[in-house]
Amino acid sequence: MASKHFLTLQNMSKAVIEAEYAVRGTMSIKAGKLQKDLSQGKQFPFSEITECNIGNPQVFGQHPFTFNRQVLSAVINPELLSSNVYHKDVLKRAETYLKNVPHGLGAYSDSQGFRMVRENVARYIENRDGGVKANPDNIYLTDGATFGLHVSLQTVLSGPNDGVMLPIPQYPLYTALLSLNQAQKVPYYLNEEQGWRVSSESLQKSYDEATRSGTNVRALVVINPGNPTGQILSEEEMQDIVAFAHKNKLVLMADEVYQKNIYKEGAKFTSFKKVVAESRKYPIDLVSFHSTSKGLMGECGIRGGYFELHNIDEEVHQQIHKLRTMYLCPNTTGQVLCDLMVSPPNAQNYASEVYEQFRKEEQGIFDSLKYRAKLVTQFLKSMKNVSCNEVEGAMYAFPRIHLPKKAIEEANSRNLKPDLFYTMEGKIL
Amino acid sequence: MASKHFLTLQNMSKAVIEAEYAVRGTMSIKAGKLQKDLSQGKQFPFSEITECNIGNPQVFGQHPFTFNRQVLSAVINPELLSSNVYHKDVLKRAETYLKNVPHGLGAYSDSQGFRMVRENVARYIENRDGGVKANPDNIYLTDGATFGLHVSLQTVLSGPNDGVMLPIPQYPLYTALLSLNQAQKVPYYLNEEQGWRVSSESLQKSYDEATRSGTNVRALVVINPGNPTGQILSEEEMQDIVAFAHKNKLVLMADEVYQKNIYKEGAKFTSFKKVVAESRKYPIDLVSFHSTSKGLMGECGIRGGYFELHNIDEEVHQQIHKLRTMYLCPNTTGQVLCDLMVSPPNAQNYASEVYEQFRKEEQGIFDSLKYRAKLVTQFLKSMKNVSCNEVEGAMYAFPRIHLPKKAIEEANSRNLKPDLFYTMEGKIL
Repeated sequence: MASKHFLTLQNMSKAVIEAEYAVRGTMSIKAGKLQKDLSQGKQFPFSEITECNIGNPQVFGQHPFTFNRQVLSAVINPELLSSNVYHKDVLKRAETYLKNVPHGLGAYSDSQGFRMVRENVARYIENRDGGVKANPDNIYLTDGATFGLHVSLQTVLSGPNDGVMLPIPQYPLYTALLSLNQAQKVPYYLNEEQGWRVSSESLQKSYDEATRSGTNVRALVVINPGNPTGQILSEEEMQDIVAFAHKNKLVLMADEVYQKNIYKEGAKFTSFKKVVAESRKYPIDLVSFHSTSKGLMGECGIRGGYFELHNIDEEVHQQIHKLRTMYLCPNTTGQVLCDLMVSPPNAQNYASEVYEQFRKEEQGIFDSLKYRAKLVTQFLKSMKNVSCNEVEGAMYAFPRIHLPKKAIEEANSRNLKPDLFYTMEGKIL
Repeated sequence: MASKHFLTLQNMSKAVIEAEYAVRGTMSIKAGKLQKDLSQGKQFPFSEITECNIGNPQVFGQHPFTFNRQVLSAVINPELLSSNVYHKDVLKRAETYLKNVPHGLGAYSDSQGFRMVRENVARYIENRDGGVKANPDNIYLTDGATFGLHVSLQTVLSGPNDGVMLPIPQYPLYTALLSLNQAQKVPYYLNEEQGWRVSSESLQKSYDEATRSGTNVRALVVINPGNPTGQILSEEEMQDIVAFAHKNKLVLMADEVYQKNIYKEGAKFTSFKKVVAESRKYPIDLVSFHSTSKGLMGECGIRGGYFELHNIDEEVHQQIHKLRTMYLCPNTTGQVLCDLMVSPPNAQNYASEVYEQFRKEEQGIFDSLKYRAKLVTQFLKSMKNVSCNEVEGAMYAFPRIHLPKKAIEEANSRNLKPDLFYTMEGKIL
């Protein structure tokens, strides 16, 4: 019988079908069923379900910064400027935006994002990177990091033989975006035994294998701090990665959305921008991504962020600009939030009560994230048949479950992958 | 000499390069130069530049609704709920959101959008369409209509021979998105002499020509009210279009973002959803788009909107859901704004001062848009060598400039298209 629909799985985009994204998988269906059973009063050894498959801190009680939300509300409704509901420093900050964005949040902005925000992002990057210059013209504000990745990958990939190197374990958006672009995934493996380190040897091995099988490797994605693996790269490792990208003519895409989530004692975040800019030997093409969804504000729903182009060909830059323009502009609330992320209140220009409240909230969030990173690792390590690397940064632990032979046999007999079998059962047989 | 960049025009995405979008064109460069000259004090017969290439009402002094901005500000900063800065009905409305969205605007929402907003959108559609049922599960909230178009076209197009029918004149996003998807543009021509009407004959002619040259026509885009042509389709025309889509097995994509912008006396907006649902003979696949950027609120920068799937295959629907999920969620401020669009304050449930202020603002915006639609048409018609159809709806006039032979010859001699020559010169020779 003919379908009663014109558009079917048979004649729709194959690239969309092939894009894997764990949304309607076995796990997610089971979670949905458990949630429903719970709400209907069915008894379980637990009373609520906690979705840990994505970093979404405000779901777990993390509060937004008081200062940020006050400023945002006054920019959205400038009537508040003439009320006495906020501290005058809050109103002053809101006024700064309204002066620089005379048409307010309701007009389309420059497609690249408000100029004043891009200038502040550039200043933030320069301070972070010890003075290495940043140019507002190379900065694009986005609705979260996802949009920036989408635009960058779409620009780089020129055909079905093109491939991009991705860390394994990875954040699943990358493979999904590559499928959508009908491009090749070139996995490189992080070394779990060595704390999820990446070596130039393993990078070169993956590159060579892909090249031998006909893939034209075009770009290398690095996630630092690691998602979902939580390691922090050292400057030496980063220099090796940059040298590798240079040797093989790869565009480096640096996902640095967890740059503020550094918990390991003595560790610090170094940006790829800094490493590339300071290494005169390896002037590689670089795109770096940041977001308002992570860090300490965790404002996932507002959708803000930016990407920075470094050493990108001017004609290619114009093409990226055109692509960005097609999608009009990033949402303006997220743009203001991005500004609040890169230029928070400081002791010099803000009344002590405003600054102190901000600082206290920031410290509280950081301490809590750091404490939980430690707690979860300790807990996982205390479990039988579970091992886990230290969470040095970011927001995730990535444990290894050592399944006994019997469990693996049982999984096989049910035609399930052992890890899926474990997560569905919730215990080892 | 080898390029110092790895990524160049030669090895980047051809699809991106081929996507045309008037962003760095001759006109736009000239406008930028004039703007700079003006700001440096150079004298011209004009004192400011008005960018009319995109509907951006708040740039031209249109105010956002007081009620909407008050509610949004209190949802963004719930501290305001305990202040006395707003009317209690404003606070009540804000509380409704915070009750239904317990984690606030800072958490990722359901990828499809807040359930309560989708329920209100469904209710709005049912009221608009005289009771035709709408299902919240078929509604996807978006950041403006653009994202919905992007997702829909990407889903439909399965290869380089697939094509989509587009009205000419059109909104340039469509051709750009088709280029990005490496698909064929199948233009159909609106009849200027007959007030930009579309006939089934002209549709069939375009379809047949494309088919003959090897294009597999998959979808038909209709923009109603027309952008940039301003005509409003009658129900009869719509029935013809639906019959045409059915006959040729085309997915219908209905861009209805100007559904509230109806100025012609006696005219009313009818949705394709209603026409399709009521025509049992032609149960075609339909996707309809709406936006918070246009209508009477004109909140372009906030980025809100929705699309509705009607009669879409369940497996295809799941693929669209997956694609939406990859991009996490639409910005939450835009989602609340979308709710405010579909369920504005009414006389029954709101204090008269709140309702009356809203109503007055709404009437003021509508009257002003309608007045300007008439004014600009009259003005264009009064110009020598210019003709223009009545602006029945939407936000644009699309005049015809009748260039004398001498001007066309001069344009040709300068190797310029006559219309570009005219716009660059600003006058007819």
